[in-house]
Amino acid sequence: MSRIVALDTTDIRFPTSLSLDGSDAMNPDPDYSAAYAVVRTDVDDAGHAFVFTIGRGNDVQVAAIDALAGHLVGREIEPLLDDMGGTFRELIRDSQLRWLGPEKGVMHMAIGAVINALWDIKAKRAGLPLWQLLARMTPEEIVGLVDFRYLGNALTRDDALAILRDAVPGRAEREQQLFATGYPGYTTSPGWLGYSDEKLERLAREAMAAGFTQIKLKVGADLHDDIRRFRKAREVCGPDFPIAIDANQRWEVAEAIEWVNALAEFRPAWVEEPTSPDDILGHAEIARGVAPIRVATGEHAQNRMIFKQLLQANAIEVMQIDAVRVAGVNENIANLLLAAKFGVPVCPHAGGVGLCEAVQHLSMFDFVAVSGSREGRMIEYVDHLHEHFVTPTAIRGGSYMPPSASGSGMEMKADSIAEYTWKGQHVFV
Amino acid sequence: MSRIVALDTTDIRFPTSLSLDGSDAMNPDPDYSAAYAVVRTDVDDAGHAFVFTIGRGNDVQVAAIDALAGHLVGREIEPLLDDMGGTFRELIRDSQLRWLGPEKGVMHMAIGAVINALWDIKAKRAGLPLWQLLARMTPEEIVGLVDFRYLGNALTRDDALAILRDAVPGRAEREQQLFATGYPGYTTSPGWLGYSDEKLERLAREAMAAGFTQIKLKVGADLHDDIRRFRKAREVCGPDFPIAIDANQRWEVAEAIEWVNALAEFRPAWVEEPTSPDDILGHAEIARGVAPIRVATGEHAQNRMIFKQLLQANAIEVMQIDAVRVAGVNENIANLLLAAKFGVPVCPHAGGVGLCEAVQHLSMFDFVAVSGSREGRMIEYVDHLHEHFVTPTAIRGGSYMPPSASGSGMEMKADSIAEYTWKGQHVFV
Repeated sequence: MSRIVALDTTDIRFPTSLSLDGSDAMNPDPDYSAAYAVVRTDVDDAGHAFVFTIGRGNDVQVAAIDALAGHLVGREIEPLLDDMGGTFRELIRDSQLRWLGPEKGVMHMAIGAVINALWDIKAKRAGLPLWQLLARMTPEEIVGLVDFRYLGNALTRDDALAILRDAVPGRAEREQQLFATGYPGYTTSPGWLGYSDEKLERLAREAMAAGFTQIKLKVGADLHDDIRRFRKAREVCGPDFPIAIDANQRWEVAEAIEWVNALAEFRPAWVEEPTSPDDILGHAEIARGVAPIRVATGEHAQNRMIFKQLLQANAIEVMQIDAVRVAGVNENIANLLLAAKFGVPVCPHAGGVGLCEAVQHLSMFDFVAVSGSREGRMIEYVDHLHEHFVTPTAIRGGSYMPPSASGSGMEMKADSIAEYTWKGQHVFV
Repeated sequence: MSRIVALDTTDIRFPTSLSLDGSDAMNPDPDYSAAYAVVRTDVDDAGHAFVFTIGRGNDVQVAAIDALAGHLVGREIEPLLDDMGGTFRELIRDSQLRWLGPEKGVMHMAIGAVINALWDIKAKRAGLPLWQLLARMTPEEIVGLVDFRYLGNALTRDDALAILRDAVPGRAEREQQLFATGYPGYTTSPGWLGYSDEKLERLAREAMAAGFTQIKLKVGADLHDDIRRFRKAREVCGPDFPIAIDANQRWEVAEAIEWVNALAEFRPAWVEEPTSPDDILGHAEIARGVAPIRVATGEHAQNRMIFKQLLQANAIEVMQIDAVRVAGVNENIANLLLAAKFGVPVCPHAGGVGLCEAVQHLSMFDFVAVSGSREGRMIEYVDHLHEHFVTPTAIRGGSYMPPSASGSGMEMKADSIAEYTWKGQHVFV
C-alpha cells in the first residue's frame, strides 16, 4: 500500500500571444497556459495532468485544483485507483463543491485534472499507455467508470454494455491497425486569423504534403476576409481536399446560417462552434439551416449533459470532445459512449498546451473498444508546444502514431515547468 | 473624479450544517458561505457584494473575484458607473477569463460579484435603493445594460425596448403599490429534509399565519417520506393553500415524471429542479409528462442562454432567477426581459446568505419597469442569517416591503464578517 502525500500545483503560462499563434475571432491574444497538477505518493511515483487555459485566470484554475487536496492527501492510493468510477463519483458528487458548477467551469475542470492525474499514475503502474490500459478493460469495468446520472433518457448502463460488448471482437486486430497506420489527424496550423495570406497558403501546402486528412480555417471576424482566405485555401488544396471552418462562437443563430451559406461554394467540411456552446437549440436550428454542411462542436461543452442534448436534438454531426474541459477520462468515456449510441463520429479538439498528447489516448481507446471505427474520424493537430512534454505526439504521414510510453501523456518536462512558471508577467531574456 | 483603490475579498462561512438548515436531497450538509467582495474608492466609499456558496470551495470563489482586480484597481470609477453596460461587457468578454467558462461557473459568478458591487456603490451615490435606481432609468438606458449576444433568436434590442416602453405608464403607481403592500413572499422554512414531521407541521402553520403566499417542501430522497410529509403539510394547510415541491436536481427524466405524478394528488403548486439544470430538453420532457403541474427552475441556470432555451422549449412555466448565480444585475435584467417576452412569471430563488436581501431589488424593478405585474409572482423567503446584513429584509404579512436604504442590500455587518471569516475550520466558543 502507498499513500498520497501531496497534490502539487503550478501556474504555467507560455507567451503565445506574441506570435498570434492561436488567434481566432473570439480569442485574439491567447497565452496558452496550464494549471498543472501532480499527485505524489510516498513510494515516489506521481501522476501528472493539467487544465488548459489561455492566460489570465490560470491562477483561479490552480486554486480550484488546490481545493481538492482534502479529498486525496493522506489517503491510500490503491483503493482510489482500483475503483476509478467510485473515485470519480466521490469528487463530482461532493455536494459543497458541486454548488460551484454544478459540473461545469473551473471547479469541474479541476476535478478533471485530478482524475486525469490518477489515471496517469494508474497507467504508469500498469506499464501501459492510457489508451491501451482502457482498451483492455472489460465492458463491465468500463461501464463502472461512468456516472450515468442524467443520461437515463439517452444512454443506460445496458446500452453502454451492449456497445462495448459489440466491440470486443476485433480489439486485438484494431490495436495492430493503430500500430501500423496510426489514427488520422487534421491540422488547424494554417488557419489562425492572425496569419497573413502567404503564411496561410504556405502552411496549407505543407499540411497536405505532410499527409493530414483535413485543414481548418478560423472564420467569423469579417466575411470578405473569410471568402478571400477560403478561396486561397481552395486554390492551394484543390476542389476535393476537406477544409473545415471554425467560428469560435462568434455568431448569432441567424447570422451563422447566413455566413456559412455565403461560404458554401467552398464546401466546408464542417462548421465548428457557430454560436454559444450552451445553445443546444441554436445549434439545432443552425444545423437545419446550413445542411448539408455539417455542424461540429464540443470543445467548450461543459459536461455529458450538453453532449447528450446536442445529440438528442440532431444539433451536431461531428462531436468534438476535449481532454480537459470536462471531469477527465471518466466523463469523456460517457461522451464517447453517447456518440457511439447516436452514431456520430468523434473528432476531438486539440492544440493548446498538451491537448494533442492527452486526447489521442481517448480516440485510440474509442477505436479499439467503443466505436470500433476510424471512419470519418480524426484528431485535431496543431504544431505548438509539444517540445515541453516528456512523451510528445508522434505524427507520421499526418496520423497520430499510438503512444507506447506508459501513462496518460500529460507529463511536462521539469525544465519547461521551471522556465514557464508564471512570475506575474512574461519575462524574456 | 475618484479612483478604485482596492477590491477586497473575504471568505465567510456559517456553520449551518450543524442544524440541518438548508438540507435537501442533493445538499445534505451545506455550510452557507459568502465569497465577499468590496470595491473601495479613494473618496472612502465602497460597494459590497458576494457570491453565495455552501462551504468547501468558497476559497476558490474568492480567488476568482481576486482575479478581476486588474480590471478595476487604479481606474477612475465614474466612467465605469456611468456605463454599466460597457463595464459589464468588458468583464464578460475578457477573452482569456472567458475561456474558464465560458460565461458559467466560478469565473462568471465572480464577475457577477464585481458587477453587483459596482451597482451597490452606484445606488449609494444616487441615494437610492437599487430597485428604484433601476426602475427610474429610461427604457433606452436599461437596454444599454444588456448584452444581447446569443439572444438574437429570442429577444432583440427592439423587443426589449418595446417591453420596457409598454411598462413606462404606471411606473409611479406601481412604486406606490409596492410601498403600500410590498411584494409577495413564499417560504421554504418548513420544508427542509432534515426536519422532523413535527417541525414541518409547526413551521407550516407559522408560515400560513405569517401571511406567506405559499410554502415549499424538499422532496426526492424517498417517495414514501415525501408522500407522508406532503400529506401532513396538506392537512395543516388545507386543500387550497399553494404548496410547491423542490427536488434539487435529484431525478432522471422518467423518474421525475413518475415521482411527481405520484405526488399529484396533493396538487403541488410547482415542481422545482426536477433534474440537471443543464438539461433543457429533459425539463421540456418533464413539463409535458407532469402537466398541468408546472415545472420551475433557474437557481442553477448558469446564464441567459440557458434561460432563453428553457423558455423556447416550453420547459418551464415558472422562472427562478438567482441574484448571484449569473453575472450580476446586468445579466439578470436580460433574464427578466426574456421572461417578459415569453410571458412567464419570475419567482426568484432566495434564502442562503443574503439572497433575499439581494434579489428583492430585481423583482421590484421587474414589477415597476419590466413585467408590470405581481400576478402569480413571489419571492422565496427563508428566515436564516438576515441578522448579518446592514439592511435586512423587512417582511410584513408575508410580503417583502421595499427597501428604502440606498444600495443593493448586499452589505454585511462588519462584526459578522469578522466573526465568520473562515479560519480553516469552524470555531465555536
